[in-house]
Amino acid sequence: MKQRVISALIGLLILSSAIALIGTIFFNMIIAAVSVMALFEMLRASGCLKNPCLDSLSFLMAAIIPFFNEPAIKGWVLPILFLFFVSFCILLIKNLRTERLEQVSVMILFSLFVPLFFSCAVFMRDFYGVVAGSFYLLFALGCAWLCDTCAYFAGRAFGRHKLAPFVSPKKTVEGLIGGLLGCTVFMILIAFLFTLCLEAFGVYIYVNYIAILLLTPVCAMLGVLGDLFASVIKRQFSVKDFGDIMPGHGGVMDRFDSVLFTIPATFIIAHAISLISVL
Amino acid sequence: MKQRVISALIGLLILSSAIALIGTIFFNMIIAAVSVMALFEMLRASGCLKNPCLDSLSFLMAAIIPFFNEPAIKGWVLPILFLFFVSFCILLIKNLRTERLEQVSVMILFSLFVPLFFSCAVFMRDFYGVVAGSFYLLFALGCAWLCDTCAYFAGRAFGRHKLAPFVSPKKTVEGLIGGLLGCTVFMILIAFLFTLCLEAFGVYIYVNYIAILLLTPVCAMLGVLGDLFASVIKRQFSVKDFGDIMPGHGGVMDRFDSVLFTIPATFIIAHAISLISVL
Repeated sequence: MKQRVISALIGLLILSSAIALIGTIFFNMIIAAVSVMALFEMLRASGCLKNPCLDSLSFLMAAIIPFFNEPAIKGWVLPILFLFFVSFCILLIKNLRTERLEQVSVMILFSLFVPLFFSCAVFMRDFYGVVAGSFYLLFALGCAWLCDTCAYFAGRAFGRHKLAPFVSPKKTVEGLIGGLLGCTVFMILIAFLFTLCLEAFGVYIYVNYIAILLLTPVCAMLGVLGDLFASVIKRQFSVKDFGDIMPGHGGVMDRFDSVLFTIPATFIIAHAISLISVL
Repeated sequence: MKQRVISALIGLLILSSAIALIGTIFFNMIIAAVSVMALFEMLRASGCLKNPCLDSLSFLMAAIIPFFNEPAIKGWVLPILFLFFVSFCILLIKNLRTERLEQVSVMILFSLFVPLFFSCAVFMRDFYGVVAGSFYLLFALGCAWLCDTCAYFAGRAFGRHKLAPFVSPKKTVEGLIGGLLGCTVFMILIAFLFTLCLEAFGVYIYVNYIAILLLTPVCAMLGVLGDLFASVIKRQFSVKDFGDIMPGHGGVMDRFDSVLFTIPATFIIAHAISLISVL
């Protein structure tokens, strides 16, 4: 437990630095680092790390995607993606006997979509500005992690009916409901504190509390889905944890599995409804 | 041989109708039909057609993608794509014991990229107009099919050195060179005839013959790559043909395998260099 708390504190420190740097290119770099680490863990777990050429190509892609909206790269996105496909095809044709289409598909899919989903954090900043972007990032992370934590305690107190016994036997329906309720309450509190903090710096924002009330559970549900999806990978490949980079928590993907879906979900939600706007 | 020629003539008839309808929504429908058929054949060949829910979802996606640039759907592309992912994840979690991550990845990859690559024909029309769009479509199809045909005859006449003995044993280096040279000559001829035809209708265009001379072999090479990629699938899953919808030619994918890569390649080339422009 002590180890777990220390790891969590270090994690929070890194997260605070990320938010402090959100307006700079360093934020893209942090997302790129998270993407590459998450991709590495997911490819390793699914037994895809075999061919150094394919692996390098995947990691290269994961490192580039968070920069897709930067002026220098923006115009090259389509050619880069196409070249990535063509290179994978050439490598598959060359290694016909050792590489199977199925595993190469897993590699392509993970190398494109894991970084793309995480990169929505960068795109949120680019599209909605630093202030709203920071809030949306907090919203995405909060929906995932607060729901996780509240569900843990609610499940321990009231848990009776299993949610997905074959995928994640410890999850209960009661835990999920408690998680959704708890994270909604906390999210509204966070929005309120965020407003107060900004006001202290002379920045005034309008927060759409009704939208937060309605959309936090939706987003948190997607976090649970991401968690279950990661469990499926671990179960199908008989892996316990994705890694051990964060003692007590496991690998990057053990912590970010639920975030994988809440970040793109928040990006899409923000497209439709402004949860906050700077006045 | 007779059957082959009849099939080819029917194919050319359909192709001419497609080009005649290029300015209308029917062209999107034709591309959607080709995408769904190609996807069906590729999923069947790779043994992925097992779960009716997953299959329907894949075909639905293939049918929608060619309409992604239509005003009614344009704003919904991101939510549609995300919903597609989420649905696939839910189905994978629900069918944890019967569906493997690898096969689901093949399904997602094919359902997204096969239609997307074919849909570049629609996007070319939308981006560059009906006249240039028609020429780019002819260019993409010409690079693939003319190279194929010229390579066949050049290979029969001079073929000695195998190109990719394990993937496609009949292909030779001499055939490839003959194919590239032949299709470049034919492509310049087609561009010239295209200009004459349009002039008869009072439409004047400028053709960048030097770009065509340089880029036809590049695009044709990608056609060969598409062909080899399809051969890898057939070989890894021990399938002879993708289908038998076109007697003498096999399935849709047996004819469109080389086109799969030349269409997006042409789209990207056209982004960088205008091969033709309407005066």
